[in-house]
Amino acid sequence: MPRYVMTVRCADGPGIVHTFTAALLEAHGNILDNAQYGDPLTEQFCMRTRFESPITDVAEVRRILQPAVHTFGATFTVRDEDAHQRVLIMVSKFDHCLLDLLYRWQAGELPIEIPLVVSNHPDCAELCARYGVPYLHLPVTKDTKVQQEAVLRGLIAEHGIDFVVLARYMQVLSEQFCADFAGRIINIHHSFLPGFKGARPYQQAYERGVKMIGATAHLVTADLDEGPIIEQGVVTVDHSMDATTLSIMGRDVERQVLSRAVRQQAEDRLFLIGHRVVVFH
Amino acid sequence: MPRYVMTVRCADGPGIVHTFTAALLEAHGNILDNAQYGDPLTEQFCMRTRFESPITDVAEVRRILQPAVHTFGATFTVRDEDAHQRVLIMVSKFDHCLLDLLYRWQAGELPIEIPLVVSNHPDCAELCARYGVPYLHLPVTKDTKVQQEAVLRGLIAEHGIDFVVLARYMQVLSEQFCADFAGRIINIHHSFLPGFKGARPYQQAYERGVKMIGATAHLVTADLDEGPIIEQGVVTVDHSMDATTLSIMGRDVERQVLSRAVRQQAEDRLFLIGHRVVVFH
Amino acid sequence: MPRYVMTVRCADGPGIVHTFTAALLEAHGNILDNAQYGDPLTEQFCMRTRFESPITDVAEVRRILQPAVHTFGATFTVRDEDAHQRVLIMVSKFDHCLLDLLYRWQAGELPIEIPLVVSNHPDCAELCARYGVPYLHLPVTKDTKVQQEAVLRGLIAEHGIDFVVLARYMQVLSEQFCADFAGRIINIHHSFLPGFKGARPYQQAYERGVKMIGATAHLVTADLDEGPIIEQGVVTVDHSMDATTLSIMGRDVERQVLSRAVRQQAEDRLFLIGHRVVVFH
Amino acid sequence: MPRYVMTVRCADGPGIVHTFTAALLEAHGNILDNAQYGDPLTEQFCMRTRFESPITDVAEVRRILQPAVHTFGATFTVRDEDAHQRVLIMVSKFDHCLLDLLYRWQAGELPIEIPLVVSNHPDCAELCARYGVPYLHLPVTKDTKVQQEAVLRGLIAEHGIDFVVLARYMQVLSEQFCADFAGRIINIHHSFLPGFKGARPYQQAYERGVKMIGATAHLVTADLDEGPIIEQGVVTVDHSMDATTLSIMGRDVERQVLSRAVRQQAEDRLFLIGHRVVVFH
Repeated sequence: MPRYVMTVRCADGPGIVHTFTAALLEAHGNILDNAQYGDPLTEQFCMRTRFESPITDVAEVRRILQPAVHTFGATFTVRDEDAHQRVLIMVSKFDHCLLDLLYRWQAGELPIEIPLVVSNHPDCAELCARYGVPYLHLPVTKDTKVQQEAVLRGLIAEHGIDFVVLARYMQVLSEQFCADFAGRIINIHHSFLPGFKGARPYQQAYERGVKMIGATAHLVTADLDEGPIIEQGVVTVDHSMDATTLSIMGRDVERQVLSRAVRQQAEDRLFLIGHRVVVFH
Repeated sequence: MPRYVMTVRCADGPGIVHTFTAALLEAHGNILDNAQYGDPLTEQFCMRTRFESPITDVAEVRRILQPAVHTFGATFTVRDEDAHQRVLIMVSKFDHCLLDLLYRWQAGELPIEIPLVVSNHPDCAELCARYGVPYLHLPVTKDTKVQQEAVLRGLIAEHGIDFVVLARYMQVLSEQFCADFAGRIINIHHSFLPGFKGARPYQQAYERGVKMIGATAHLVTADLDEGPIIEQGVVTVDHSMDATTLSIMGRDVERQVLSRAVRQQAEDRLFLIGHRVVVFH
Repeated sequence: MPRYVMTVRCADGPGIVHTFTAALLEAHGNILDNAQYGDPLTEQFCMRTRFESPITDVAEVRRILQPAVHTFGATFTVRDEDAHQRVLIMVSKFDHCLLDLLYRWQAGELPIEIPLVVSNHPDCAELCARYGVPYLHLPVTKDTKVQQEAVLRGLIAEHGIDFVVLARYMQVLSEQFCADFAGRIINIHHSFLPGFKGARPYQQAYERGVKMIGATAHLVTADLDEGPIIEQGVVTVDHSMDATTLSIMGRDVERQVLSRAVRQQAEDRLFLIGHRVVVFH
Repeated sequence: MPRYVMTVRCADGPGIVHTFTAALLEAHGNILDNAQYGDPLTEQFCMRTRFESPITDVAEVRRILQPAVHTFGATFTVRDEDAHQRVLIMVSKFDHCLLDLLYRWQAGELPIEIPLVVSNHPDCAELCARYGVPYLHLPVTKDTKVQQEAVLRGLIAEHGIDFVVLARYMQVLSEQFCADFAGRIINIHHSFLPGFKGARPYQQAYERGVKMIGATAHLVTADLDEGPIIEQGVVTVDHSMDATTLSIMGRDVERQVLSRAVRQQAEDRLFLIGHRVVVFH
């Protein structure tokens, strides 16, 4: 039987779960997994439901669920679990996160498609070639950012990209671009935010003498390093480790935190509510 | 508005969530939190729902939900969130877990009542006195186990005990006692099960030269150290630490793992399905 | 045979270890444990050596080691391992760290003496009484800080205090006091520094939507929350936890991080080198 | 100035550190890092010293240190830090650990040489080719084990292999082979030993309902899964994860635990003392 993932988001209130589960019954659905959250700060409600149904056409499922959606004025998605989301990866020179994503994708660990990798440097072309993934070298300077992003927008449309992953892409995206793709760009920052924002966080960590370093995956907003946090991880360090050693140790954390965040987005587990990200594990 | 926690367990199948949410609507309930799981091994379904309702009498809520219960032949509970479960703590000489539970209870961190502490030794009497909790010294030998457990049974009935916590109680309960209170006794074992079952696990760990030690909270069954696992924790150790040092480090893990398990049971988050424990975090 | 702990700190250079181990041989010492570090930033060297010697008088041991000390112009200590350091604990109203330290001390887990607890509130008096530790209520306002600290200085001298532990003491010490006891005051801050400095870190963490919260033990300097870091710990959290829940979860981390830092100071494992703390685990 | 790593192992007793540091002074050495341990169970002493010396010929350094070695009948090594150890990697079909080691090696994160990868399957040939590492397909059956191992022995000699890494090599080595290369073969076992020895540990973990899974790097002995433990790691799991999901999550732990163990061996940080491994971090 086909399996589907439904997400619902609307103003909180009674009857939402009941109405949607009624609609699911109408679609002969059996719920496999359900998670929901009512946020006290924003009074927003969000729900993720995984279900199976004998109906094989997702459009038909969507049609059946539509009245429930209308009742609550909900933002709504339903997706065949096997129809993987399409991810554009952006990278600069550091390739550890990129390799990690490619490997997991190829090993079947990550339920995504990767139609394209874009970089402002040529360095990672060979790595992508090994995995049979198209690679586009798209240089950018301060002066050409608008044009570069116009190309990017074209590629996102052309390839039907669902979300973008910045896998150590060291360029700042324009405010407009961030706004237009709000909630659809994931970045990995190589520190435990809100500590060590900005450049050279491992050097900052070394100088501050911290005893743990970390990494943070977050949704990208125009306000750099202030994006809503998806996942974080840390590793214990000590005084004998210099900034270079910290950066090597940190790569492990970056890889894992980013791949977890990508998986969650790929499985429709993330909901941006106010400035906080709800993650249904 | 009063808040309630409902648990449902039955054979898996379509319509369960819908039927119960319909009943909740009838009770003017608004769902705050909902978690569910269908176990592929046993084909059992379980659900925990936290909701608020203007109805102030839990018996009335229960009455409204009863038809849904009947429909699915479900095991069912509903509890006013403020009506804390009543816990009997059993202890021998080590008092670190007991103190931790008493402190958290007194600080309002753990939503339980502690009407009684029972021990086969007199050592922890003073500690309980400090916290104003009655303490019963109930010695036991191989020959008196049946009688001692008869007294225990009486105390459990008399004090309306919901579940029992073995906070480093170093006696083995009888097979019959374990069977009669299946799913209602939580033990802390001072190793990362299934490693180092039996006596002196820290000594075993030292001799084996492990690089992490742990603790395991589990439901008690007649088969010692084979009970279904609720929670586990570890801490990193090294070659320089002898068995005594390991046991001191391990106490921290024991405390935390046990108190987490007690909280989960107290909040109706545990479901014993087959030989595995479902925990809705 | 008596066991001693020696610490040495001086400008880095060849021959230090050799000269001190020669002196130890002269004292018929056998090294049990040795750790050393040469800091590339400051070119400072530090060493901690644990040894046994048939000489039972620590003054005699010190006398034998003195020429080596002179050779390198070293800062030097040697202490009989059984002569525990004397710790003054300061606390305000939150008692979880205080209880933890008292329990570990009484259980023989922490090699310290606690001659006195000082607080700006009366709340923790009863807890200290239970453990037989003198408690002094020493209120303070902005206007009386100088006088209060004068009393503190007197107590530190009178009780032969080796170091001070701020176990959730919610007052800021004066710049002069911090300077005079530099390297001898340990504080626990309830965030993962440098994130969430200042007041109400759990509320800040909640609003920022972090996925891990932490605690930091640090040496106290006049620059609040900028003190050199000794130990850090974290715990994973999620969107459903409000600031109160975070603070309850954080208490566990605070307790553990602070007690680890106190142990390290008590065992002469900490060396403040520049603005970083070397910890020999 | 060249940097060297010296290891010393002998029966414990006074004067060892002093005698060796005297010899280091004679070699104009400056100690950068020193760690030592006296094992109470076996009364063995071991020491690792990292130092710099103006002498550029390691043989000359070795000659100067030789008298100290003789004095204590020590097992002794000294190595130019830049002369990387040579590692033979063995693999079967799972390639995640292999890729991880290759990547870290190529990125300069792991101070090793990899002259050869050997496998009983052809599957990983292409991966090795990408990294420019020779790959030998060396099939084995029960009946051909002796011959296969004879070839292996030849390769180890021919390529000057320092140690062997079993990166998910699913064949059992013969007792004789294990004995002949005692302390020089590192394996990764995909469970938190001593839990879940033997085959299919993730399936065992799933059925047992553990709440954490782990991986263990150990030295290989003839007694399968009983080898001395080098490193361990864990990750938290829950009831909803089946054995396949556990195995995917476990791969991350395997990769990290194995690469840490390889680094420690490569940096001469491991000492097998009795049945326990001393690791100088």
